[in-house]
Amino acid sequence: MPQSNSINRQILLASRPVGAPTPANFQLVETPIPQPGPGQMLLRAKWMSLDPYMRGRMSDAKSYADPVPVGGVMTCGAVCEVMQSNHDGYAPGDLVMSYTAGWQDYSVSDGTMVFKLDKHMAEPSQALGVLGMPGFTGYMGLLDIGQPKSGETVVVAAATGPVGAVVGQVAKLKGCHVVGIAGGAEKCAYAVNELGFDACLDHKQADLAEQLAKACPKGIDVYFENVGGKVFDAVMPLLNAHARIPVCGLIAQYNATELPAGPDRMPQLMRLILSQRIRMQGFIIFDNYGPYYPDFLKEMTPWVAEGKVKVKEDRVTGLENAPQAFIGLLEGKNFGKLVVKIAD
Amino acid sequence: MPQSNSINRQILLASRPVGAPTPANFQLVETPIPQPGPGQMLLRAKWMSLDPYMRGRMSDAKSYADPVPVGGVMTCGAVCEVMQSNHDGYAPGDLVMSYTAGWQDYSVSDGTMVFKLDKHMAEPSQALGVLGMPGFTGYMGLLDIGQPKSGETVVVAAATGPVGAVVGQVAKLKGCHVVGIAGGAEKCAYAVNELGFDACLDHKQADLAEQLAKACPKGIDVYFENVGGKVFDAVMPLLNAHARIPVCGLIAQYNATELPAGPDRMPQLMRLILSQRIRMQGFIIFDNYGPYYPDFLKEMTPWVAEGKVKVKEDRVTGLENAPQAFIGLLEGKNFGKLVVKIAD
Repeated sequence: MPQSNSINRQILLASRPVGAPTPANFQLVETPIPQPGPGQMLLRAKWMSLDPYMRGRMSDAKSYADPVPVGGVMTCGAVCEVMQSNHDGYAPGDLVMSYTAGWQDYSVSDGTMVFKLDKHMAEPSQALGVLGMPGFTGYMGLLDIGQPKSGETVVVAAATGPVGAVVGQVAKLKGCHVVGIAGGAEKCAYAVNELGFDACLDHKQADLAEQLAKACPKGIDVYFENVGGKVFDAVMPLLNAHARIPVCGLIAQYNATELPAGPDRMPQLMRLILSQRIRMQGFIIFDNYGPYYPDFLKEMTPWVAEGKVKVKEDRVTGLENAPQAFIGLLEGKNFGKLVVKIAD
Repeated sequence: MPQSNSINRQILLASRPVGAPTPANFQLVETPIPQPGPGQMLLRAKWMSLDPYMRGRMSDAKSYADPVPVGGVMTCGAVCEVMQSNHDGYAPGDLVMSYTAGWQDYSVSDGTMVFKLDKHMAEPSQALGVLGMPGFTGYMGLLDIGQPKSGETVVVAAATGPVGAVVGQVAKLKGCHVVGIAGGAEKCAYAVNELGFDACLDHKQADLAEQLAKACPKGIDVYFENVGGKVFDAVMPLLNAHARIPVCGLIAQYNATELPAGPDRMPQLMRLILSQRIRMQGFIIFDNYGPYYPDFLKEMTPWVAEGKVKVKEDRVTGLENAPQAFIGLLEGKNFGKLVVKIAD
């Protein structure tokens, strides 16, 4: 059933996943459309975003953000139309990006974490990707923590995803040798031929470590960490002195239910950090860099318009298909930024 | 036999240690005094430094510096007198700190990594500790990477050693809550009563983790890592969002011959770095911060003179006793900066 003007479809967290999420962890319910109170507005979702960080919100392990409660609406950002407004800054018909919309048709907001968009924007869904949280993540993590210098080697995994694609393309704009890692030949070809990476390796190949060493003859100066797992294993021995590792995600680890078998390599990592004088730094984009968002948009918007930064979206239609699309995202099935079209 | 003016006693690396070094890994030999060539000078050692980093130089594992070759003179810094000089910048009688002197009576230098000292300096051995490499390490790592703010909690291990004592005392000068960790009640009492730490815990106690949690009721904002091992284990769960971890040493791990048993906690550490947005950064003091050494001396020298930063040395006499003293250093037997008096 499509979006209606009398019912609010919501996707709830039905139960916490153990390991990989399954459809049974989600529940689609129909509820009344909420009413905005004083200072609030009613938002109608048009495009919603699916991102790996949401896996963390499904668990109750200690993290930077509170988990979604069981029975609560799944969290997400969405491009929305303002339907009613008691908020001085917004009027009906405004197009906004709301980072607190949730997996549902309608939401109420007091303006917190809401950004106004140009209502004539050609591709509003880009506010979920290259011009939104993922693009901002790739841009700031690369430039502020990674600090790439011309001629240095930058490695990024999930190279065709919305974060990795921005990292690699911005690193190319900065004059770096860029090596991507992605799942499968098609994604790798796209990273090289369309995004302009110098090389892109398929992490499904058994000899990833050897291939990476060949693709990085001068070692690795910046490793943008968004996956963890075996990619990081291949990266470690290649890290140069003074390498920088922005850590923005660990998708390969999110479904893990226990730590891998030993030996315990934590001391090895610490020794590497010391002996190679490595800077490794975790960041959560709006928490660390919120005030820089307008600066980012000012630089990235023309890059996208001029084709200096190319954009690929993986579009799914229908709120009801969000759970399966999200499950696929954690398995690397998407090709480009995964967005769900909820309604026109 | 004491220092002579006709023989150069040298301590060589006789063999590479497996695990903890033993006296058999060292060999004392007598050789002719070297002659300085053009642009060089002959240095006579008065005080030599023993520091944990030397354990790394005894191994041939890949590290930031080349290992000492088997049969080569052990590496160290020393306070020396210039005996002969073909170098325009130095004259016989000058007192210098040479970072390339080695475990021996006499060395030849072209001035690289040599700093002139005031020949009337009251305590020249301080150039090996609080005013030298260890003090500089503690100062820069704390201030540049740690960036402590007033009211934050700073934790440092090896609290009575020359690095830890500077970290803790400078953190107190910056208004922080400072918790030290040291080996044994005597060192802990000294850290609190003499150095002014807010608390100091004995790492030999079985309930270190519980004690640390109690001593850090607001969590940990800066952990200055110079030991590794079980201290880091106790620190991890207490790290606050945006905590900073300068990594300057891992003495607890240096003698390890293999990685600890599993599970593999490396993914756990990476997840912690991400979720708490932690900055973890290794540094090698002169490699990262060499040009700041004069600035450091300008601030630290009066702090020491005025007693704002207190100094404790553990003095051993005689070059021949250096190996045993170094073995003890790795076991935490020294109390204060370990220095060896070679000659007047």
